[in-house]
Amino acid sequence: MDIVKDLLNGSRLALSRTITAIENEYDEAVDIMKELYPHTGHAFVLGITGPPGAGKSTMTDKLARAYRNMGKTVGIIAVDPTSPFSGGAILGDRIRMNSLTLDEGVFIRSMGTRGSLGGLSHKTADAVKALDAFGKDVIFVETVGVGQSEVDIVKAADTTMVVLIPGMGDDIQAIKAGILEIGDVFAINKADHDGADKLQMELNMMLDLDGEMKEWRPPIQKVIASQGEGINELVAQLDKHYSYIKENGVLEQRRHERTRTELMELLNASIGRYITNSIVKTGRLDNYLEDIKSRANDPYTIVRSLLDELLVK
Amino acid sequence: MDIVKDLLNGSRLALSRTITAIENEYDEAVDIMKELYPHTGHAFVLGITGPPGAGKSTMTDKLARAYRNMGKTVGIIAVDPTSPFSGGAILGDRIRMNSLTLDEGVFIRSMGTRGSLGGLSHKTADAVKALDAFGKDVIFVETVGVGQSEVDIVKAADTTMVVLIPGMGDDIQAIKAGILEIGDVFAINKADHDGADKLQMELNMMLDLDGEMKEWRPPIQKVIASQGEGINELVAQLDKHYSYIKENGVLEQRRHERTRTELMELLNASIGRYITNSIVKTGRLDNYLEDIKSRANDPYTIVRSLLDELLVK
Repeated sequence: MDIVKDLLNGSRLALSRTITAIENEYDEAVDIMKELYPHTGHAFVLGITGPPGAGKSTMTDKLARAYRNMGKTVGIIAVDPTSPFSGGAILGDRIRMNSLTLDEGVFIRSMGTRGSLGGLSHKTADAVKALDAFGKDVIFVETVGVGQSEVDIVKAADTTMVVLIPGMGDDIQAIKAGILEIGDVFAINKADHDGADKLQMELNMMLDLDGEMKEWRPPIQKVIASQGEGINELVAQLDKHYSYIKENGVLEQRRHERTRTELMELLNASIGRYITNSIVKTGRLDNYLEDIKSRANDPYTIVRSLLDELLVK
Repeated sequence: MDIVKDLLNGSRLALSRTITAIENEYDEAVDIMKELYPHTGHAFVLGITGPPGAGKSTMTDKLARAYRNMGKTVGIIAVDPTSPFSGGAILGDRIRMNSLTLDEGVFIRSMGTRGSLGGLSHKTADAVKALDAFGKDVIFVETVGVGQSEVDIVKAADTTMVVLIPGMGDDIQAIKAGILEIGDVFAINKADHDGADKLQMELNMMLDLDGEMKEWRPPIQKVIASQGEGINELVAQLDKHYSYIKENGVLEQRRHERTRTELMELLNASIGRYITNSIVKTGRLDNYLEDIKSRANDPYTIVRSLLDELLVK
């Protein structure tokens, strides 16, 4: 396909069109991904998550700048599971305040739900692959929050960084479980604010208490992203983690798990589309719903007969 | 089935065993649900959600007591999407402090994820049906937070109540979108605390600004649940909403939508299990993953050939 050739030859337009195709589930997206797939697996994928207001965008931008200074190319995908918007919304704010967008070595793209939350993690994973095949050395996947959908999204990452800020109060307790589980590296942003030491202490305590004996103890890096303070140290910690997972097989294992998840999700989504075509678009679903409503039939019996009809036994 | 007969005859043990079967996805759960289905559709299902710490459990208990005083029987399902525990965890705290559990007219059950978050909303919906068939007049579905999984869970409800408390600061902005969308009735708990008036004002502003012109303007009721203040007024608001949706067809429409969602989810889950048996348990998945890893094949091609193999064309 021409679009694939163009993308592999470095066309930003082709890359952008590819991600649009992924996002809108155009039929050609699958064909594009098939051809791109052999060219993936080279980039370092960094997941960035944390509560709203933690300064993740600023942190992402400074990190991108740091990697650029090391001669690496950067891709950024900003994902907002709570927003139906994409392309424009988050990106808009970025463009106004950000010199990164003038740098040919950086590609920034935001993605929203477009109404189908379920597919967002899969679409994000495909967009990461497109950037990977395009040749980006480092790919950031940045999310707006730390909910379940964000956790699903950062599963596309090799290394996950959790950004926190002082003064979150009891919130840290509420999000504690999820955070401890997914964070490979912790960054305390706005470290000059009151409570940064307290937050660091609490985090350390939680990490120490964390039941599982893990070989990797996530480091906690204080940062003042707006002033660029601590950014180089943070990059060093991220590199250290990436080296660690590469050396001891964790990276391979994570990518294996990820491939497994992605394959199963792709299969489920494809079958879901098939079902939609079979029973929703033909109007049969409406008949079923009538029967259920009148209690003439029940969902369990209907599903059983549909399985007999749709699946090869 | 004996268990169905026993449940319909009022056996709490049979009800409890049914929910356990639902929760653990025992094969018999589907058979039980098939037989229970014709007996459902009578209960008023009330969803209760809100941020952690808003006092939802206390509120639920007081509301349950109020409905009991009106001569209605009550079922309570407390769902914690962040907890792998069920039966014991949340329920434990309740038992110690709660006289409701001594009341034969009340059935309380907590449900956790047991590792499969995806199925929780469906399992909750089935548990609601079991309580409905058992003959409960009012069924509460109470969740711990206001994330996406909680929103999915309260979709099982006829009326959804959102519980808030003063002093949440900017959090209300963060959860604003989701809250406005799902709340039919708002309760401001701990209304004697500082900031209750401010919260009420902010909420009113948000509801007024809410773009869509809606016929139902969600009321905001101040409550001090621990002292029982405002509970009767809250019940009146809930009744008012239930009457409203019954009269103008919204209830029918909501239940129609719910049936549709449940049917599709059940179908997807069943097909998912079939796939798991076909390719995971036979070890074929591992071969696919090897091929993908070596880039000898790609997920998209594999899924296409699996669709050809598994689905009747």
